[in-house]
Amino acid sequence: MILIKIGGGARINLDAICCDVALLQKTEHILIVHGASVKRDEIADKLGFPTKTVISPSGISSVFTDEKAMEIFLMVYAGLANKKIVAAMQKHGVNAVGLSGVDGKLIVAKAKNDIYVKEGEKTKLMTGNRTGKVEQINSDLLTLLIDKQYVPVLCPPAISYQNEIVNTDNDSIVAMLAGALKVEKVVSLFEAKGMLKDFNDPESIIANVSARELDDMMPFAQGRMKKKLLGAKKALELGVKEIYWGDGRIERPVFSALEGNGTVIR
Amino acid sequence: MILIKIGGGARINLDAICCDVALLQKTEHILIVHGASVKRDEIADKLGFPTKTVISPSGISSVFTDEKAMEIFLMVYAGLANKKIVAAMQKHGVNAVGLSGVDGKLIVAKAKNDIYVKEGEKTKLMTGNRTGKVEQINSDLLTLLIDKQYVPVLCPPAISYQNEIVNTDNDSIVAMLAGALKVEKVVSLFEAKGMLKDFNDPESIIANVSARELDDMMPFAQGRMKKKLLGAKKALELGVKEIYWGDGRIERPVFSALEGNGTVIR
Repeated sequence: MILIKIGGGARINLDAICCDVALLQKTEHILIVHGASVKRDEIADKLGFPTKTVISPSGISSVFTDEKAMEIFLMVYAGLANKKIVAAMQKHGVNAVGLSGVDGKLIVAKAKNDIYVKEGEKTKLMTGNRTGKVEQINSDLLTLLIDKQYVPVLCPPAISYQNEIVNTDNDSIVAMLAGALKVEKVVSLFEAKGMLKDFNDPESIIANVSARELDDMMPFAQGRMKKKLLGAKKALELGVKEIYWGDGRIERPVFSALEGNGTVIR
Repeated sequence: MILIKIGGGARINLDAICCDVALLQKTEHILIVHGASVKRDEIADKLGFPTKTVISPSGISSVFTDEKAMEIFLMVYAGLANKKIVAAMQKHGVNAVGLSGVDGKLIVAKAKNDIYVKEGEKTKLMTGNRTGKVEQINSDLLTLLIDKQYVPVLCPPAISYQNEIVNTDNDSIVAMLAGALKVEKVVSLFEAKGMLKDFNDPESIIANVSARELDDMMPFAQGRMKKKLLGAKKALELGVKEIYWGDGRIERPVFSALEGNGTVIR
């Protein structure tokens, strides 16, 4: 099984990804997870509730999800982005079914409503954050669909043990899904050519990374990249053999990543 | 099997509906279809693209769905409303799975992009309308889920034969679903006590209506009510035994409707 993560950037070539999935599904089971952060921020601005980003004491940035932010999240991720990807896949003959983590308790997370955040030199407690840590996957539901040749297209939010809708980090969803469904390969497509040595040099691709090197990189990673590295580490721990980071803006994005044109983590 | 249609009004008592479904699912298979028109109009206003309503030459009102309206529709129906209903059901122990008509080609509609509309005395052709007429239901996917004790929570839009996302009338979705899945009873919950003799008198409930009487009523029905009557007529033609229209604002709304406190069409 191959899990394809489609990043939430505006320049992702969805049509090209669909072409690749249409070919790949002939020989492989496929599972898709997607983001929608750029569109989410755009709609949040338009509705007058701009996305709030907070930094944890350990330096990891995340979105603060209050009730209003959650409504916008549901609209853009589970509604607009999810169904547009499903329809694009259908156009290419891929029988996609879009689901959020709430549906059939697909992704269960442990709620953590209060978080500590860094504001300059100070550490502050923020309450009312609707987020959680992914702990369980309903693999029965996914297997049910995959066995009938459907291609699940998944996105956050997740559902808590108390059946509240909670936001979760997409990279840890990918890792947990990969572990639960015994995924061999994860292909993560975003708006860069791969993992970059120098953030300001788009050509400074790191071609190969071992699990041990992943740890060494952690201290140098900034912002969202830290989460991506943690997600990759967890996916490897959960049994994934190879993780491919590749350019989602080009033609043949999935095949190009699988051919090693981005970063291969193993 | 019982199909429950949850209207898109702001005063619908979702919690009470969930309580009823939790009890009913012990002895019956349940299928849910929902609207979200009030929330859709609210978000459409906030985003600066207010909902446009048009009237067909035969006097049936419908929403004109251009690309912008479709994006808002996806956000509110398939995202916000659908996942909130799914989570509310989960809270009551109902293992709900939310899907739109696009997912797994659940609801296939024949696209009709150009429509004639009445503007005062004139009839005008409007192009770019992303709507369609429901023609096919993927009952295999629904049966797959229902057999595993999932409760499908469905909403428009549908998908066209050309794999475009198209809006469709919710009442005809209900009728086609009921026909495809051999539903015996349809319970339709909205913000009134039932079918009213006099629109201005909320107590003027018509308790019983026969299929023949439905035809007699058609000329007097106004606006959206015409669609509801047409939907009921079609559902009966497709094999539904009884249709219950009831108050979705009260406690025990589903049981109350089934006990005949609203309008029963048979």
